[in-house]
Amino acid sequence: MEKIQIRKELSSIEKYWTQKVLGEANGQLIKIAKGTGELNWHKHDDQDELFLLYKGHLTIQLRDRNIELYEDEMFIVPKGMEHCPKAHGDVELLVMGLNVTSNAAGGRPESWTPDNIAS
Amino acid sequence: MEKIQIRKELSSIEKYWTQKVLGEANGQLIKIAKGTGELNWHKHDDQDELFLLYKGHLTIQLRDRNIELYEDEMFIVPKGMEHCPKAHGDVELLVMGLNVTSNAAGGRPESWTPDNIAS
Repeated sequence: MEKIQIRKELSSIEKYWTQKVLGEANGQLIKIAKGTGELNWHKHDDQDELFLLYKGHLTIQLRDRNIELYEDEMFIVPKGMEHCPKAHGDVELLVMGLNVTSNAAGGRPESWTPDNIAS
Repeated sequence: MEKIQIRKELSSIEKYWTQKVLGEANGQLIKIAKGTGELNWHKHDDQDELFLLYKGHLTIQLRDRNIELYEDEMFIVPKGMEHCPKAHGDVELLVMGLNVTSNAAGGRPESWTPDNIAS
């Protein structure tokens, strides 16, 4: 493989909440995405999910508290824990987990369609 | 757990080439380190090793080529592949793998001692 320029890859993403796989290490997929607005509440019973923010402000809502993530901040949602990410404006993030999504809905909002275009 | 401020954590590291564990996800340790100078050639037969640079310029020397990593760039050294990281000045990086080191020497240079203090 070659090196990966994360910010360059982020700038190439055209659709919100559509993960792009950058690489794999020890069975973990390294993925990036652009987000806007709020997802649905969901959980992943089979895996932890790591969020690392590259741009913007993302609130990871948990049932008992909110985690406020800004650039270069990271949070790991433990497997089985319900969460609901909410972007304030546009966000860019790196996500790590066992696969692209272990949740059928992927937590996407009802308004999500493959045609949502990221700015 | 709480959120992790990666750059703040990096600024708190006092010794070169000493990994600090920030968290764990799906059996992977998320670690950070400061580096300077060149390590020894080594490999990890049991795991891939992910490097994500936060500051500076790191050359990951491979036997057949060099990977030149700058801020916000990532490279995954496949398991079993010999590599030798070389920092140009000081570097700050995130490393992900199955444990702190699967190599007894950890690739540290002969001059490394627990008293090497990072700037």
